[in-house]
Amino acid sequence: MPNAILPVAPGIVASDWLNVSRPITLDQLRGQIVVMHAFQMLCPGCVSHGIPQAELLYKYYAEKPVQVIGLHSVFEHHEAMNKNALEAFIYEYRLTFPIAIDQASNDGPIPVTMQRYSLKGTPSLVIIDQQGKIRLNHFGRIDDLAIGDMIGFLNQKGG
Amino acid sequence: MPNAILPVAPGIVASDWLNVSRPITLDQLRGQIVVMHAFQMLCPGCVSHGIPQAELLYKYYAEKPVQVIGLHSVFEHHEAMNKNALEAFIYEYRLTFPIAIDQASNDGPIPVTMQRYSLKGTPSLVIIDQQGKIRLNHFGRIDDLAIGDMIGFLNQKGG
Amino acid sequence: MPNAILPVAPGIVASDWLNVSRPITLDQLRGQIVVMHAFQMLCPGCVSHGIPQAELLYKYYAEKPVQVIGLHSVFEHHEAMNKNALEAFIYEYRLTFPIAIDQASNDGPIPVTMQRYSLKGTPSLVIIDQQGKIRLNHFGRIDDLAIGDMIGFLNQKGG
Amino acid sequence: MPNAILPVAPGIVASDWLNVSRPITLDQLRGQIVVMHAFQMLCPGCVSHGIPQAELLYKYYAEKPVQVIGLHSVFEHHEAMNKNALEAFIYEYRLTFPIAIDQASNDGPIPVTMQRYSLKGTPSLVIIDQQGKIRLNHFGRIDDLAIGDMIGFLNQKGG
Repeated sequence: MPNAILPVAPGIVASDWLNVSRPITLDQLRGQIVVMHAFQMLCPGCVSHGIPQAELLYKYYAEKPVQVIGLHSVFEHHEAMNKNALEAFIYEYRLTFPIAIDQASNDGPIPVTMQRYSLKGTPSLVIIDQQGKIRLNHFGRIDDLAIGDMIGFLNQKGG
Repeated sequence: MPNAILPVAPGIVASDWLNVSRPITLDQLRGQIVVMHAFQMLCPGCVSHGIPQAELLYKYYAEKPVQVIGLHSVFEHHEAMNKNALEAFIYEYRLTFPIAIDQASNDGPIPVTMQRYSLKGTPSLVIIDQQGKIRLNHFGRIDDLAIGDMIGFLNQKGG
Repeated sequence: MPNAILPVAPGIVASDWLNVSRPITLDQLRGQIVVMHAFQMLCPGCVSHGIPQAELLYKYYAEKPVQVIGLHSVFEHHEAMNKNALEAFIYEYRLTFPIAIDQASNDGPIPVTMQRYSLKGTPSLVIIDQQGKIRLNHFGRIDDLAIGDMIGFLNQKGG
Repeated sequence: MPNAILPVAPGIVASDWLNVSRPITLDQLRGQIVVMHAFQMLCPGCVSHGIPQAELLYKYYAEKPVQVIGLHSVFEHHEAMNKNALEAFIYEYRLTFPIAIDQASNDGPIPVTMQRYSLKGTPSLVIIDQQGKIRLNHFGRIDDLAIGDMIGFLNQKGG
């Protein structure tokens, strides 16, 4: 791999966190790989593919220095996907991975973290390496194989 | 088939209807077969199986005297599955079949039509024959084959 | 349904039968509905869809006057799909429905029964009513719903 | 990872090779990762899961120092799964990855390479690292994620 200049991962700006006892910051995860899955609870492709994949990753890497984080980035139907609705969704779908509620913006429908990462929609998958650099920023469906390949590569490198 | 005494289908009590220009009554559907799919928008088994099945039935029987009706019977997380949220859900999942919002009850979480049909949960499928009698009241997953078999049987009988 | 002149189902010409103690003839099935699934053991669409569907139909209609028959109509790779290979296939896939081996033709690769029914390839599904008339002759994938609908319709009519 | 003593991968003993112009040896692949998928063409779990996975791996790693090899290890129904039958299977399923036909043994049904690797059945997946050591020898279904994770890890290490 050439020595590309990798972008630094911006911090996650969350109005709330679910499935964790306290907020998570990327700074405290330095030295670990972070897999951030951005979704909306009423996005069909997230429900059928992205969210089960995030749960699978969370369980598969439970004992490894890999942190899976969900990011609820609501950019449409804001009222229908508020915190109360998301909590019902998490309960019904038995989700266990940590989920940040992306902070609503003052100047438009796109929430703050989604803007910072220039996400194109949901589902999106972002992989951040042990030095806090963005290695992948993918919009749409992505195969488990590609994710495993990248995490395995970074795990060795970072170890 | 023995001459069993079949229960009469109670009327649908709806606070609202979506995907139709005016409310549907079972009385006006006498002479047709009615397939009623009771669901909740945050019920995983409804989203993965029951709702796509209802949409399939609606399209398959479009030219036949068979009316598919969705019944949004919310008995939990009422606020998260209100009318506004359901409209967003219908839009995102591109649902086209008529959907009644089951009337909330004054005396508990179970809505009125759900009580009248003694539905055990969601997803449930009810098939009503041309004479307004209940032929099937099934809780949980049911195969397309079983539904087709019953509708084909009733179609011939009623013709 | 208009009074179309329905084609009479030709007899099945088989060089052998598997999963039954003696050959089946359509004549002896008069009064029953016959569902004939034509397949080849090395046809991917048969293995993934048609054959599991035939097994499902066989079990679903076990107590009804509906006879499911597999027809192994080999029109290519004849040596690779001989009787010995088919027996191994049936064993490995745990198939339980009766299967006729379509009689090889003297004048070309298309076996005799396949020619008689003018089947276009595999998988094909043929439905024969209680009077021995062909009601469906379908090449390619077909939904469970459509099959159930036709069988239910014929069951009532024939009863 | 502790400094475990990893077993050396024995050579592949093949009676024939398909989808390649000449036989492949593990020696010539030193420096590359080898993914060997052992299957039987009439094994249901191979057809539904293992073989499509091998094809996916072959395409995903086409430009990487990762060689996917199929190993047709027939230990039952030998006649039904001979070379001619395998060629028909490969043609029908549009398989493009290199496939070795595991050499039949003189003293029993288990072929030679299968014995050398102590494979427990099909499907099995073996991953061999750049130094010719066995890193994984897995019987049964395995997720894409686990395979990607191991290959990514080895790719970095070996680079």
